[in-house]
Amino acid sequence: MSTELQSWNDGKTKERILNYVGSVTDPSQASFVPVEERIAVFDNDGTLWCEKPMYIQLDFLLRKLAAQAERDASLRSKQPWQAAWEKDFDWLGGAVTKHYQGDDGDLKVLLGGILTLSEGQAVEQIESDAGDFIQNEQHPTLGLTYQDCIYQPMLELLQYLQANGFSNYIVSGGGRDFMRGFAKDLYGIPRERVIGSTVAYQYLEGSGGGTIVQKAELDVVDDGPAKSVQIWNTVGRRPILAAGNSNGDLAMLEFAGGPSRPSLRLLVSHDDNDREFDYTAGAEKVLNVAQEQDWTIISIKQDWRKVFPTDS
Amino acid sequence: MSTELQSWNDGKTKERILNYVGSVTDPSQASFVPVEERIAVFDNDGTLWCEKPMYIQLDFLLRKLAAQAERDASLRSKQPWQAAWEKDFDWLGGAVTKHYQGDDGDLKVLLGGILTLSEGQAVEQIESDAGDFIQNEQHPTLGLTYQDCIYQPMLELLQYLQANGFSNYIVSGGGRDFMRGFAKDLYGIPRERVIGSTVAYQYLEGSGGGTIVQKAELDVVDDGPAKSVQIWNTVGRRPILAAGNSNGDLAMLEFAGGPSRPSLRLLVSHDDNDREFDYTAGAEKVLNVAQEQDWTIISIKQDWRKVFPTDS
Repeated sequence: MSTELQSWNDGKTKERILNYVGSVTDPSQASFVPVEERIAVFDNDGTLWCEKPMYIQLDFLLRKLAAQAERDASLRSKQPWQAAWEKDFDWLGGAVTKHYQGDDGDLKVLLGGILTLSEGQAVEQIESDAGDFIQNEQHPTLGLTYQDCIYQPMLELLQYLQANGFSNYIVSGGGRDFMRGFAKDLYGIPRERVIGSTVAYQYLEGSGGGTIVQKAELDVVDDGPAKSVQIWNTVGRRPILAAGNSNGDLAMLEFAGGPSRPSLRLLVSHDDNDREFDYTAGAEKVLNVAQEQDWTIISIKQDWRKVFPTDS
Repeated sequence: MSTELQSWNDGKTKERILNYVGSVTDPSQASFVPVEERIAVFDNDGTLWCEKPMYIQLDFLLRKLAAQAERDASLRSKQPWQAAWEKDFDWLGGAVTKHYQGDDGDLKVLLGGILTLSEGQAVEQIESDAGDFIQNEQHPTLGLTYQDCIYQPMLELLQYLQANGFSNYIVSGGGRDFMRGFAKDLYGIPRERVIGSTVAYQYLEGSGGGTIVQKAELDVVDDGPAKSVQIWNTVGRRPILAAGNSNGDLAMLEFAGGPSRPSLRLLVSHDDNDREFDYTAGAEKVLNVAQEQDWTIISIKQDWRKVFPTDS
């Protein structure tokens, strides 16, 4: 077997990945796919890095909300500032889980607060803040800085695909400009290949070339069927490989391949409470479809020899 | 002088282009710009190809509207079907000129009709129709197929920049998916580097991977300050070189370079009634700014030895 994918255990999952990449890169096979069409799309939270006990970007934003409540006591009895101030991770994590189960109420309250953070901020500032944050701040339970919360086996997969002529894209419900602050350093993915949710932007004229600033309104919510649309908008091609972990990735996983190309659909299953977390909330539907359709389910427990880069 | 840019006459304009590219690609100079930041953005209509007597895409759309009026006589007394049916180029061209002068009334009527064409259409169909159209249909007065209405000197400029490590993008008010149908063949610009106006899209689930179809509503109108925002959304970098020809390109031209990079701003001036067209309508403001700021104004009459690829 290949010496690639060192942090993957030998077995059916690794074999499927190697066989698939072999088949689409071998010009003598009918399954060959030309380089320019080797598009691979990866969800970020829960697929390339850890998303529990809450999204890493959420921690970034909550610290900003808590700082607002620090300055203004009247905010401390109002959501989402109250949860940020009190570090009420149940309320916060629940907002996201409920969203993936179809109830957007608390998520909208949370977003309303978050959007007040962005108004008028220059886009370069967000990226720079994001890069600093993941380099310096700690995950609440894993004892790792956030930049070490990426999954080593997925990093090797990205590198393996790139070495085989694939163009890797991130397609995440997370904030595009937050991710642009570190995608190249962490994953080797250039900024123009980062697709994510965005607020609306505005161009402000000014001496020296003007600036792009945020507005306090959402533009794209890159989740569910919108992921397929955003892939089309950005890439203009249907991907042949897609990887995700939640119900929000279902449409993107379905979209991969299409009628005329062989596809590989990867679903990360979080089943390892010792080394990471064990949960299916928000992934119930996609896990069912993956089993029915025989997509490739990655069991963290069984398929990954290492989870994080710092694991021995 | 260089042997590049064969269809450009020697003179100040050509010299400025060569000097600029020389200065940003010479690692020994302070003005050096790394390859990944050599982003060049080009308007399409009136900058890379002819836009008179009307946008080429407008002809494409009008033929579809006329075909609707052919099938349904009641449409023939209603705009924009009436103008399409009667080939009333004054009304149609006027809608666009008035837009650039600040009056959107007729353009909205026109767009309303055009949007009815797109509902439910698969995106692949638009591209394929666009490619066929420009290969086979004729410009109304120049005696050229539309694909020969590109400006040979600008094509050489694109090639020269690409050879010098630039990434060229189209940033046009025209339809992105229309342009994706031929941008690679005509200009060597890959589909992910085509930025333009878009209708909203919808992902429809379906066996074999679902499809992306158009909705009868606008999403992005890629004109004016929106061009700078769309460049940021797509590229995530400020361009260092921008080329345009109308007031709709003013913000994009200003945006190029910015406070920290040397920039080249090119404005195509349509002043050659013998070989192309002679007009300033819709470009009054940007021409003034270009003169005031000493941007590089390209005179078709003086700077271009050839205009179209078929010219001797």
